[in-house]
Amino acid sequence: MRIILDRESKISLYLQIRNQIRRLIQTHTFPPGYCLPPERKLATTLGVNRSTVVNAYRELEADGLIESHVGKGTIVKPMAILENVKEPDIPVQPLIWKDFYNRQSEKMYNPALSNILDHLAQDDLISFAAGAPALETYPLEKFAQINSNLIMKSQGYPFEYSSTLGLYSLREYLAEFMAARGIETQPENIIIISGSQQGLDLLAKIFLEPGDAVVVEEPTYLGAIGVFNAAGAHILTVPVDENGLCTDILEQILARHRPKFIYSQSTFQNPTGVTMASDRRMKLLQLAYRYHVPIVEDDAYGELYYDTPRVQSLKAMDDYNHVIYLSTFSKILFPGLRLGWIVAPSSVIDMFELAKQHADLHSGTTVQWLITEFCRQSLLEEHLHNVRDKYTSKRNVMLRALEKYSPPGLSWNVPKGGFYLWCQLPLGINATTLLSKASEKKVAFLPGDAFYVSTGGQDKIRLCYSRCPQETIEEGILRICEALTEISQAQSSTQNSYNPKNRINPFI
Amino acid sequence: MRIILDRESKISLYLQIRNQIRRLIQTHTFPPGYCLPPERKLATTLGVNRSTVVNAYRELEADGLIESHVGKGTIVKPMAILENVKEPDIPVQPLIWKDFYNRQSEKMYNPALSNILDHLAQDDLISFAAGAPALETYPLEKFAQINSNLIMKSQGYPFEYSSTLGLYSLREYLAEFMAARGIETQPENIIIISGSQQGLDLLAKIFLEPGDAVVVEEPTYLGAIGVFNAAGAHILTVPVDENGLCTDILEQILARHRPKFIYSQSTFQNPTGVTMASDRRMKLLQLAYRYHVPIVEDDAYGELYYDTPRVQSLKAMDDYNHVIYLSTFSKILFPGLRLGWIVAPSSVIDMFELAKQHADLHSGTTVQWLITEFCRQSLLEEHLHNVRDKYTSKRNVMLRALEKYSPPGLSWNVPKGGFYLWCQLPLGINATTLLSKASEKKVAFLPGDAFYVSTGGQDKIRLCYSRCPQETIEEGILRICEALTEISQAQSSTQNSYNPKNRINPFI
Repeated sequence: MRIILDRESKISLYLQIRNQIRRLIQTHTFPPGYCLPPERKLATTLGVNRSTVVNAYRELEADGLIESHVGKGTIVKPMAILENVKEPDIPVQPLIWKDFYNRQSEKMYNPALSNILDHLAQDDLISFAAGAPALETYPLEKFAQINSNLIMKSQGYPFEYSSTLGLYSLREYLAEFMAARGIETQPENIIIISGSQQGLDLLAKIFLEPGDAVVVEEPTYLGAIGVFNAAGAHILTVPVDENGLCTDILEQILARHRPKFIYSQSTFQNPTGVTMASDRRMKLLQLAYRYHVPIVEDDAYGELYYDTPRVQSLKAMDDYNHVIYLSTFSKILFPGLRLGWIVAPSSVIDMFELAKQHADLHSGTTVQWLITEFCRQSLLEEHLHNVRDKYTSKRNVMLRALEKYSPPGLSWNVPKGGFYLWCQLPLGINATTLLSKASEKKVAFLPGDAFYVSTGGQDKIRLCYSRCPQETIEEGILRICEALTEISQAQSSTQNSYNPKNRINPFI
Repeated sequence: MRIILDRESKISLYLQIRNQIRRLIQTHTFPPGYCLPPERKLATTLGVNRSTVVNAYRELEADGLIESHVGKGTIVKPMAILENVKEPDIPVQPLIWKDFYNRQSEKMYNPALSNILDHLAQDDLISFAAGAPALETYPLEKFAQINSNLIMKSQGYPFEYSSTLGLYSLREYLAEFMAARGIETQPENIIIISGSQQGLDLLAKIFLEPGDAVVVEEPTYLGAIGVFNAAGAHILTVPVDENGLCTDILEQILARHRPKFIYSQSTFQNPTGVTMASDRRMKLLQLAYRYHVPIVEDDAYGELYYDTPRVQSLKAMDDYNHVIYLSTFSKILFPGLRLGWIVAPSSVIDMFELAKQHADLHSGTTVQWLITEFCRQSLLEEHLHNVRDKYTSKRNVMLRALEKYSPPGLSWNVPKGGFYLWCQLPLGINATTLLSKASEKKVAFLPGDAFYVSTGGQDKIRLCYSRCPQETIEEGILRICEALTEISQAQSSTQNSYNPKNRINPFI
């Protein structure tokens, strides 16, 4: 009996025994009528409990491969031969899978995004890398109450298939939520999506084919660059300065190209934290009208304003239905539900509905139902009120730490909302070199080049202050500043290019 | 004051007032310094409560548009002019959105899938249309317990971003679950997806580009036809008979074409309920090996066997790693969570990971965590044991009702598992005509042509018995048989083509 057990395998011993015996039956090593060893004897041979062998035999019997007879013992059934896979006539070559992938698929590789997700998992790290909300703000108790009180009363509805557009009650709530932000819309103009990342993916599926032009701010959200790249788009970039997207440069681009859309994060942009000024917003809309180009407004952070009044979204200012609006619960509440929404003209919502039907039928009913209950109890507005204060404090702590520890040549902006500081490194210091040194000191951030379409950003870093516990922010900044100083000293001992007076605006 | 309130709108009255005043300020109708009417007076003019106007003014103040001064009343702030959107110089033309969509997007239209989702929502209908599990089997109490007991102890983890591949603990469970079904795999070879529909979408994203050939069974799952069509694939079809995919015909196709993969539902196929015979499975694998073609095995129903021993999946029989295996919790537990999984060779899992990262970052952490807790308590195996009995009874009730009420010329198969009966209509009766008559009688099913790639299936229907409460199955079948008889009578009074003796095998 040639059974070899791997005691370090994740597969149970009884399953290893069962699978190996099955294989021996299938390959006719144990032919029909073959008598298997008694359970107790096999258990002793293999050094396992008798119950392990009993379970293995029970499974094999359930599979119809063996049968037990009093007196005769356990034998291989005649019908078991049917299950035998004959060896192929010619040797089987392993498949060369990459020959089967399409030409676009190689454009999907996006290491920066993987890095962010991985960084979240490391416990002992002070991470300013992932753009996630603060764990300590999650309203767990509220969600636990919704669950326990209402699942039983729900009659199973939260576990059913549901509409591709999303639960009507949630879309109704969001129509009101949007109206309170100056976007007058109807539930029929809203589709629920699995996070705004899915919104971008569906957008590409509907609008883009290889060679199509799209316009993005630079720097911009790396997940958007990833999706547009994977779709084979020609990505045209417009720089972002301290007043947001540079509309003068946009105009030159629109005069020469016919992009499918302009992708903009108008408020508390990722990664710069910048908010587009009012006059730029107006100019952007007017350019969209003049050149007949849709705008895709990604407003993941707009609700997270600190002390200024809420900024009006492009969608709220758009009288001519040129804006497709995207938002998400991931930043304002928590990301694990994977829920966001799109507001768009009816004909465009119809296309999103079709694309989403193919993509995943609909977003989870269970989580939509949970969040609807949460929102209906006015808990979202209450939550937003709390987190705005929280993030204001965290931003201030980070700013104070930077003022305290910053070596010469490091500069940064002061965001009025959102999650991010965008920093210009001292001349001659590379963000990846800094990340490597910082990792040794157990602190992480994202190097700026992740947010650039081709080259650029090697001298910038994104610091997310929202996620990190407030009491570790100062320590994290201290470590980054120490890493900076160490690199500068090592470099200035070998070269002379570094001039501490040369402070650069991080947006150039 | 030109404010017009729509009392039937879903938008609150206070928001309507606020939005209209804001627009009047932005268009300079109310210039900076303009004095708004006192709250009480405006309330009387509009016929609303004073508190409604108070709330509107409060929002406008929070937006930074107006300010209140004791003695002076409420006036428009000077800075408000910044928010003014100038009218564009030239008239704005509405966007012709369809000119922006890509060439593939028009292939997404798939009315049958929308119909299924819609049918589920109608309460007074006896529906054999949607392929969904039985609501009465959903283990609500178990899930309610998991929620209330564990969310608080979870420290927020279920609401966080998580790995694109899925929770490791869930993949560990599934590796064991697969091993118990003869598929020896590791958590590293498994990716969690948002239902098997997403698996198909990712598959298309990785493997297909316009013009690529794929092989499917005919009839087959309409969601697969939809995705492959939308990807611009050339879909080659192999008929299904009572022993499953006709491997002889497949061989002829493989000799002439080089498909990217063969898509097969090997067990309790949707829509036919048919299970591929053992010799066909072996032949299919050998053809895949000989012609170097991957197989995509969609095994959504394999666990729902009735009285026979579990059928071995293609993946379990595949010694040479040619099979990508797809399954889902949607049919064996419930669909509202949107969770499924793929088992594949490592290099292929890497590609799925990239594609999924772009598609939605990862499947919901919350629902993955819920189902992991459920599975860890051995509740899935217990649940499967219960539902197998349940569906056996429902199938039997439907078969008995058909025997009792069937008019001549109607025939059907006897599935040994899964959700579906596949029926051949009497000669000359069209499935869509029947559906229309049946709908009048408040009973629904899916016409066969939805499951065909081009033409075919107009004389067949799919009856799903899993979903419907057992006590309404007989009534539903009675109504369909009455509809059939009425159509036959109407037709035979005008034409003579119908011969009741002409029973046809539903697989031809």
